[in-house]
Amino acid sequence: MYYAGIDLGGTNIAVGIVDENGNIIEQMSAPTGAERDYREIVKDMADIVKKLCEKLSISEKDIKAVGIGCPGSIDSEKGICEYANNLNMYHAEIASEFRKYIDIPVTLENDANAAALGEYEINAKGSKSFVFVTLGTGVGGGIIINGEIFRGFNGVGAELGHIVIDVDGEQCTCGRKGCWEAYASATALINQTKTAMEENPESIMHELAAAEGKVSGRTAFDAMRRNDSAGIKVVDQYIKYVACGITNLVNALQPEIICIGGGICNEGETLLRPIRRYVEAERYSVYSKVQTLVVKATLGNDAGIIGAALLGLAK
Amino acid sequence: MYYAGIDLGGTNIAVGIVDENGNIIEQMSAPTGAERDYREIVKDMADIVKKLCEKLSISEKDIKAVGIGCPGSIDSEKGICEYANNLNMYHAEIASEFRKYIDIPVTLENDANAAALGEYEINAKGSKSFVFVTLGTGVGGGIIINGEIFRGFNGVGAELGHIVIDVDGEQCTCGRKGCWEAYASATALINQTKTAMEENPESIMHELAAAEGKVSGRTAFDAMRRNDSAGIKVVDQYIKYVACGITNLVNALQPEIICIGGGICNEGETLLRPIRRYVEAERYSVYSKVQTLVVKATLGNDAGIIGAALLGLAK
Repeated sequence: MYYAGIDLGGTNIAVGIVDENGNIIEQMSAPTGAERDYREIVKDMADIVKKLCEKLSISEKDIKAVGIGCPGSIDSEKGICEYANNLNMYHAEIASEFRKYIDIPVTLENDANAAALGEYEINAKGSKSFVFVTLGTGVGGGIIINGEIFRGFNGVGAELGHIVIDVDGEQCTCGRKGCWEAYASATALINQTKTAMEENPESIMHELAAAEGKVSGRTAFDAMRRNDSAGIKVVDQYIKYVACGITNLVNALQPEIICIGGGICNEGETLLRPIRRYVEAERYSVYSKVQTLVVKATLGNDAGIIGAALLGLAK
Repeated sequence: MYYAGIDLGGTNIAVGIVDENGNIIEQMSAPTGAERDYREIVKDMADIVKKLCEKLSISEKDIKAVGIGCPGSIDSEKGICEYANNLNMYHAEIASEFRKYIDIPVTLENDANAAALGEYEINAKGSKSFVFVTLGTGVGGGIIINGEIFRGFNGVGAELGHIVIDVDGEQCTCGRKGCWEAYASATALINQTKTAMEENPESIMHELAAAEGKVSGRTAFDAMRRNDSAGIKVVDQYIKYVACGITNLVNALQPEIICIGGGICNEGETLLRPIRRYVEAERYSVYSKVQTLVVKATLGNDAGIIGAALLGLAK
């Protein structure tokens, strides 16, 4: 049996056909065109599924279910996206719209929750409590308790990036000040890097950014690896912010596993080792014999597709 | 049938005999004597249960189970307190020790979790997710999901007071800097009040504190009610800190109900109304049709006893 998983982002619609073990058999993507009416976007999603079926020489009827991961406030039960700021969606009836094109069961889920489920099912299945954190454009989160996505009672929980870690601090796009996202996202790291570059005209970061054509989430890390003191300072400070939020999650939830994804997680142990050191020094559970594992996500950009597909499988 | 509930605190051992509806039939307390060996404390707990039985003219056999709420890191399954700093306990085998005196089922639980269960069962039964926060000497927390205490995988979760809201901020007793507890506990409010008093020798807070014999969590609130500008400032700032942490919990968990207990909650709507205003302005779930209710705890000091007793009932 096959399942379709759709990871709807602000930039791309990524679609995969996935088997019952969570392996992507074939995938394809297309630009989202986020400014369009949601009905057009949904039609494109169905068209890509159809194209993938053709490519695999299978019938639409071989697709047992489709899962869609969508940013924003999602009403999973009704298959409606109530609001997604970067997709210009308000009360978008995505599930019913999709079934106009391919009449199979549709599960709509918040994209971070879907990705969390993907990482959980493939890498942490059986763990009692699992928290997924993505350090990307923003800081996203997903919580899996006893194998099920924890959404809060209104479906929009696990906005872990919007836990304030610095009261009256940096302005966050959500309206609050001092959110973890405003310190620990890739966007925040880029801003922190730019500020350090302005203050340190001698830093190698200028050279690195020029070579890459832009300041990225890698600039400061690369500078650190070349022993640049301004780069080291940026990375140390950034990791401290990430670790602050991770320790908050440990103290609040004591999950079995915290899994860190998003572009920045490609730094691997360079990022994870100092985070673990902060967590070990600061967690409240000093006397517990078992402690939260902090690990790196492994599915990369595929987590969204796989998690979405598995939503259908779970049903 | 009767159940015994024991709320073991740093100052007092409070014991109640509770019926199957969670009503306290009779209660009694004695000083903890926290410096003593835990075995002596446990013996006192059993003695009080026996005395209560005598008083009620019932047999120990009429007590179906006993629940004990204990501060610190608790291993509920084994009935062991692994660590409680203010009780000087390390690996205290409380449950098995208690059964030497009265051989009935014993359930040991973290005290904040037990109180959370009490408030939940009596005032919020049926809600899918419930968060209890106590603003007392510290800031305690308890999370109830689908009617069950959420402890995290190692049993010591829901340390909600130890979520950092101000990175590099006030020193917390847990070792971290900037914990919510260091801003929103009664202890923190008293410190904030004292600082404001030093800075404002003309404030009515001096008179109020002298009349009460000390600076308390009420001093600034009472001054505010008498239109004292320094008092107003302290209360406004304090409420902002409390609301910051409450909004963090809304964004992370979107629980159906957040219930605020502890001494400070006696301020009632004076405290709750502005907190709700902050939460409404700052929560991420702006487009949700249903929103977390923020309510006042109603069981007061009895929550610990009732919750502990209900632990036995639940088993």
